[in-house]
Amino acid sequence: MRIETQRYTERFGSVRLNEVQKVLELDSGRAGAPDSPKEIALLKIEEEVIKDYEDKMAIAIPVKDEKLQLFEGVISGVPHDCLIIVVSNSQRKRINRFRMERDALSQYCHFTRRSAYIIHQKDPVLAKALAESGYTELLGEDGLLLNGKCEGMIAALLLATLLKKSYIGFIDADNYFPGSVWEYVKAYAAGFSLATSPYSMVRILWRYKPKVSPGMYFRKLGRVSEITNKYVNSLISANTGFETEIIRTANAGEHAMSLRLAQLLTYASSYAVETRELLSIFEGFGGVLPLAQHTAVKHGVEIFQIETRNPHLHEERGTKHLQTDMLLPSLSAVYYSQLCDEDTRENIVKELIAQGILKQKKEEPPPPVIYRAPCEINLEKFQEIMSENLASYSALAKD
Amino acid sequence: MRIETQRYTERFGSVRLNEVQKVLELDSGRAGAPDSPKEIALLKIEEEVIKDYEDKMAIAIPVKDEKLQLFEGVISGVPHDCLIIVVSNSQRKRINRFRMERDALSQYCHFTRRSAYIIHQKDPVLAKALAESGYTELLGEDGLLLNGKCEGMIAALLLATLLKKSYIGFIDADNYFPGSVWEYVKAYAAGFSLATSPYSMVRILWRYKPKVSPGMYFRKLGRVSEITNKYVNSLISANTGFETEIIRTANAGEHAMSLRLAQLLTYASSYAVETRELLSIFEGFGGVLPLAQHTAVKHGVEIFQIETRNPHLHEERGTKHLQTDMLLPSLSAVYYSQLCDEDTRENIVKELIAQGILKQKKEEPPPPVIYRAPCEINLEKFQEIMSENLASYSALAKD
Repeated sequence: MRIETQRYTERFGSVRLNEVQKVLELDSGRAGAPDSPKEIALLKIEEEVIKDYEDKMAIAIPVKDEKLQLFEGVISGVPHDCLIIVVSNSQRKRINRFRMERDALSQYCHFTRRSAYIIHQKDPVLAKALAESGYTELLGEDGLLLNGKCEGMIAALLLATLLKKSYIGFIDADNYFPGSVWEYVKAYAAGFSLATSPYSMVRILWRYKPKVSPGMYFRKLGRVSEITNKYVNSLISANTGFETEIIRTANAGEHAMSLRLAQLLTYASSYAVETRELLSIFEGFGGVLPLAQHTAVKHGVEIFQIETRNPHLHEERGTKHLQTDMLLPSLSAVYYSQLCDEDTRENIVKELIAQGILKQKKEEPPPPVIYRAPCEINLEKFQEIMSENLASYSALAKD
Repeated sequence: MRIETQRYTERFGSVRLNEVQKVLELDSGRAGAPDSPKEIALLKIEEEVIKDYEDKMAIAIPVKDEKLQLFEGVISGVPHDCLIIVVSNSQRKRINRFRMERDALSQYCHFTRRSAYIIHQKDPVLAKALAESGYTELLGEDGLLLNGKCEGMIAALLLATLLKKSYIGFIDADNYFPGSVWEYVKAYAAGFSLATSPYSMVRILWRYKPKVSPGMYFRKLGRVSEITNKYVNSLISANTGFETEIIRTANAGEHAMSLRLAQLLTYASSYAVETRELLSIFEGFGGVLPLAQHTAVKHGVEIFQIETRNPHLHEERGTKHLQTDMLLPSLSAVYYSQLCDEDTRENIVKELIAQGILKQKKEEPPPPVIYRAPCEINLEKFQEIMSENLASYSALAKD
């Protein structure tokens, strides 16, 4: 893979925010002599280096009643050396879709000789492990893990820790192109290989996000992303005193983190999760509020934003979904951040009124549900309970 | 890459026709211990093996007034170790689109440190080389290479020979997904690595060919392909006496050949070209007609058909284009093959009437324009003339 170097880096306390870096070549060929020092604009990241990071990476795929063909396609695009962790909240009554996913994954792993884990979001052992480790806010009245992609992501990152991985990358299960999935993972690995801190995050920016119907129109960014980026940047600007447009991936569903960083962050439920991760980093390591963790502050937290070559083509879900389901929680996450200034708050309310989501000026967006950082629970207890059952989550487990 | 083994091979004289093999994993990870002998259904093709074939492969991209973003995307998906050869028939008057393509390619090659060649289909030196080497049927009244994708493909394969490559793969320039392009090339290389004969061909079958508008519908095959496959199989059946459905890639625009094979085949102009290649192989090496070349007969000719993981999503061109532009020439190629039996001919005419392309029963489809095999021209003369100018076609050449 060949990507642009970090041409520009902004700082927010001990957070290093790198400007978007474009992927130039999906496959940059055999390892050769290192590029001459004159080549300062581009980096060739050797396949061997990428594979070193893939070895240490879990790819988490949250899934809920997705078409099986899409799910299989996504799986087939994940490079072999990564460990796949599927957290499924698909139905198990009438048509047992979870069983179908499990069978498909199991057949695939059997033939491709790779390992993967699959767990249902409502798994009782998972619920018990969360309860006894003290992560009770993740549990519903029935004592099981709550619905939601964020909740599944937290389960995945706890599992990845248990499985001794160092990085976790998230991939949505509704992607039409296995080749795009492949590129996301390569970009994650490329980003981590550039990091100088063990606390790092890679967020994907799609080159284009085509609108399918009618015809084909290659948009640069989704509308929700544009709006969220604007207010995240506004929050940063207010705190640093320098106007910025550095953040272009505030809603990046495709993103990856070192587990050391992932364990320090707080998470927000629903579609606020990706935006909240950024805010959690700024709050913990931006130097404005009390510092979250001193080792991380010493190393600094690094954020990479990588623009892929492949467009992003996924299942369309219509306008209402976008606006209320995605924009409101994303902007709420910004609004309720302890770092959010009064101007940004006012503008967010105006934006939400203009979008027809809030009705009147005095209304406030509903506050996001925030979950504590995984480092605050009893991880040993979690691991102790889950370890007993771990083999049964393997895609190659016998019933 | 991990693909299915050849589970079934049909023979037509000295031609070995392999059933479709599916790609299972885009990226099968690090080279490991060879799979145990029990694994007979699947093959892991190591990245190093694939790269050995990429080194020896030219990727030819015929282009004509394509959107520049698509062209750039396609280029970025071609693995670095392949040599890119662009044959462009884009306009040079008013807006010089050829110049734009050249500049884009040149900028790309400069940054990614790779080599590529680009030549205009109406290049006067190319025309002179074709004329003096005796390939006069390729030239129009103006003395320049004729319009058409097939004519560009022949120019590309002559150039690939001149540039000392052993394989040539064709990729259409209208593909939306660089990741698909990447997979095609990997599949070409994987196919060649399985060949036991130096006379081999790899043809791509798309897993799905989505129809974009309205919504998204994942078709297995295009209509034209289905119909063409049917009549090519009918022709094979009539000659071997055993009914077959082996051919599923009769219209495969994405295909690759060893240059040793490519030089022995005759080519048909317009959209008949891909179908005609198959017929040319059957005619030359099927054992029914006089054999074309004895060394190739001894080794046999091998045809692989590989089904990709990625769907194929490209620019839509509407129904009329499909029917008259593609179906008629494809079926004409079958109809006028010396191997075509009377039943297949009659059924082709019925089909063309049913499709509204031919009007009445007595009408015959127009015969395809057939070009002689490259081995019949004076290749030394071609190379002698082209060599002088070769550097000027390099994407890195200075004006």
